[in-house]
Amino acid sequence: MAAPEIEKLIRLFGRLPGLGPRSSQRAVLALLKRRETLLAPLLQALEETARAARSCSRCGNLDTRDPCGLCTDPRREEHALLVVEAVEDLWAMERAGSFRGRYHVLGGTLSAADAVGPEELGIDRLLGRIATEKMEEVILALSATVDGQTTAHYLAERLRPLPVRVTRLGYGVPVGGELNYLDEGTLAAALRSRQPVG
Amino acid sequence: MAAPEIEKLIRLFGRLPGLGPRSSQRAVLALLKRRETLLAPLLQALEETARAARSCSRCGNLDTRDPCGLCTDPRREEHALLVVEAVEDLWAMERAGSFRGRYHVLGGTLSAADAVGPEELGIDRLLGRIATEKMEEVILALSATVDGQTTAHYLAERLRPLPVRVTRLGYGVPVGGELNYLDEGTLAAALRSRQPVG
Ligand SMILES: [Zn+2]
Ligand SMILES: [Zn+2]
Repeated sequence: MAAPEIEKLIRLFGRLPGLGPRSSQRAVLALLKRRETLLAPLLQALEETARAARSCSRCGNLDTRDPCGLCTDPRREEHALLVVEAVEDLWAMERAGSFRGRYHVLGGTLSAADAVGPEELGIDRLLGRIATEKMEEVILALSATVDGQTTAHYLAERLRPLPVRVTRLGYGVPVGGELNYLDEGTLAAALRSRQPVG
Repeated sequence: MAAPEIEKLIRLFGRLPGLGPRSSQRAVLALLKRRETLLAPLLQALEETARAARSCSRCGNLDTRDPCGLCTDPRREEHALLVVEAVEDLWAMERAGSFRGRYHVLGGTLSAADAVGPEELGIDRLLGRIATEKMEEVILALSATVDGQTTAHYLAERLRPLPVRVTRLGYGVPVGGELNYLDEGTLAAALRSRQPVG
């Protein structure tokens, strides 16, 4: 019913997580009603982000610098590494605010169904990083799903020969829950009660 | 935690209706993960829309042409006018697909609390349009809220001297409900059972 350009914009918004056809239509109308105060700044921020954002080659975080701000922040502990599945999880941990070390984003979990093995996740690179950067503790902050826990067990086995304390997030992660949906308090509690693995 | 550019983009997404801080973060991550297939097309569609979208000076619809496609479509009845509060409502009626005439977007309702009177809504312009375009039926498709019904009654009074049949949406609009949230079937039923006013 609207012009093709506007319909196309609504369809594209509808492909974002959490936006259905109606909510994306509402979002586009909100943008068109607030051209100067919302559409123009959003357009500019999208352009800047599209131009500047890149994956950190060290940890996998998304940032405008490589290495990212978390990898280069001198105030953070250098010898504690928190391993997460996805950038979402890294950001969720940062919102919780209780971890002050470094991160590693796996980019997924081991999955027989999806044919994701250790190579796809760059496990050798992770092990190399843990050795090179002399990590003293590796916290496996993986989802409490079957694939997440399979991945945690696999990593714990591979890390056993290294002089590193391996822990996992403790009480607080609901079974079957995805890290990214947890509130900050639960994440902080889970970090405090982390436990040795294997 | 993310770069300032990315944080800014997340904040701007969070100002869209239906997106909170977490869902806007997820939306931005989805964009950054799908640069070529989602971010680039969205950016282009936003640019095109920002450049091309305008309010129709005849009916108030948002389109890339003025007068809009609905006002100039020769296949639509010229002498039936459906009056809505907002562009959202016009688009919702078009989704329902059962009205084939012209539209008029009021841009709100009369509201003592918000000091919105007939002048703010351009009622004189609407009356002029109804006369000039020789409307035979005016359908008042306003929300079943106090302000919506007040506005409908006011319009019915103003239209009484004109040689035009005035109707309102009939059965199917839930009391207190906003038009934009209704499903297509309810909107179609409400249109079928429209009733004379006053
Ligand atoms: Zn990094
Ligand atoms: Zn129009």
